[in-house]
Amino acid sequence: MASPVPGLDEHLERLIRDVPDFPKPGVVFKDISPLLADHDGLSAVVAGLAAAGVADDGTVVDKVVGIEARGFILAAPVALELGAGFVPVRKAGKLPGLTHQVAYELEYGEAVLELHQDAIHAGERVLVIDDVLATGGTVAAARSLVEKCGGVVAGVAVLMELAFLHGRAALPGLSVTALRSITAT
Amino acid sequence: MASPVPGLDEHLERLIRDVPDFPKPGVVFKDISPLLADHDGLSAVVAGLAAAGVADDGTVVDKVVGIEARGFILAAPVALELGAGFVPVRKAGKLPGLTHQVAYELEYGEAVLELHQDAIHAGERVLVIDDVLATGGTVAAARSLVEKCGGVVAGVAVLMELAFLHGRAALPGLSVTALRSITAT
Repeated sequence: MASPVPGLDEHLERLIRDVPDFPKPGVVFKDISPLLADHDGLSAVVAGLAAAGVADDGTVVDKVVGIEARGFILAAPVALELGAGFVPVRKAGKLPGLTHQVAYELEYGEAVLELHQDAIHAGERVLVIDDVLATGGTVAAARSLVEKCGGVVAGVAVLMELAFLHGRAALPGLSVTALRSITAT
Repeated sequence: MASPVPGLDEHLERLIRDVPDFPKPGVVFKDISPLLADHDGLSAVVAGLAAAGVADDGTVVDKVVGIEARGFILAAPVALELGAGFVPVRKAGKLPGLTHQVAYELEYGEAVLELHQDAIHAGERVLVIDDVLATGGTVAAARSLVEKCGGVVAGVAVLMELAFLHGRAALPGLSVTALRSITAT
């Protein structure tokens, strides 16, 4: 959780705001909009996430996957910073052409995520990016999609982890980087 | 339409693919996924779009607005390149807290876009980014949202313009930059 990016922790502390009762009564939503609107804050977050795409031996991932929709905002600049390509994981019905599909559980019912079959080539190393790690269901679905393409998830990086939901338990064997950990509701 | 970014036109020519009959029979969808997955292609596109955020006198916009969802992928890196903040325009119900709302017409029925009321301050100069300019309804709604905040739309920049749909007619008085113009269905 320690960050090598100067000022990152201060930006995260100052620019994530609590919005009570969203999306429903009793839930406190962690809104990253002020962080995204702050150039220095966004730069620091991108640098922090991009660090997760470089292995100890200096190997850089080939692709950065962003999960719709807030994951797109972070993953595209991370891909550019790393010299990698950007690949979207989207909700069902949005991607034209041949896709892999994975269903995952939501609080009520289930949803389907898709990835283009040709978006990731066999053996490519992939960094999966989202804004929040909650129960881990979405990221686990993204992992499964990458693996259906023959890719290898080299790491997962999120801006915030809701640690009290134990999302890492849904991601066995994966390296997960969270720039900020929220330990209580 | 001329581009000062080396290699941009070649990337656009090579990396946008036609997918027939998506999202419905008879429509040819212009899929930018191969472009996003190509680091050099994405870099060139971001540079091309970012140029629209700098006025002739060198003034740079304060904020870059990205329209959900593909607009996010392009707008966030453009904001970083320009030293500006990133602001999302989202579909109804996604943004927590106080928002402005604008309804706009779709082919069947209408949809609502939202923008945080505090996302753009009075007098700030804004670049609006989306992947495609079609009829112009979405971008016109985004313009209206920016103006409700007291902001000024300094420009609109899109990757592709479906010129045969005459979207610029919905954006009177605005400077519109399209990296690629599609002149026929």
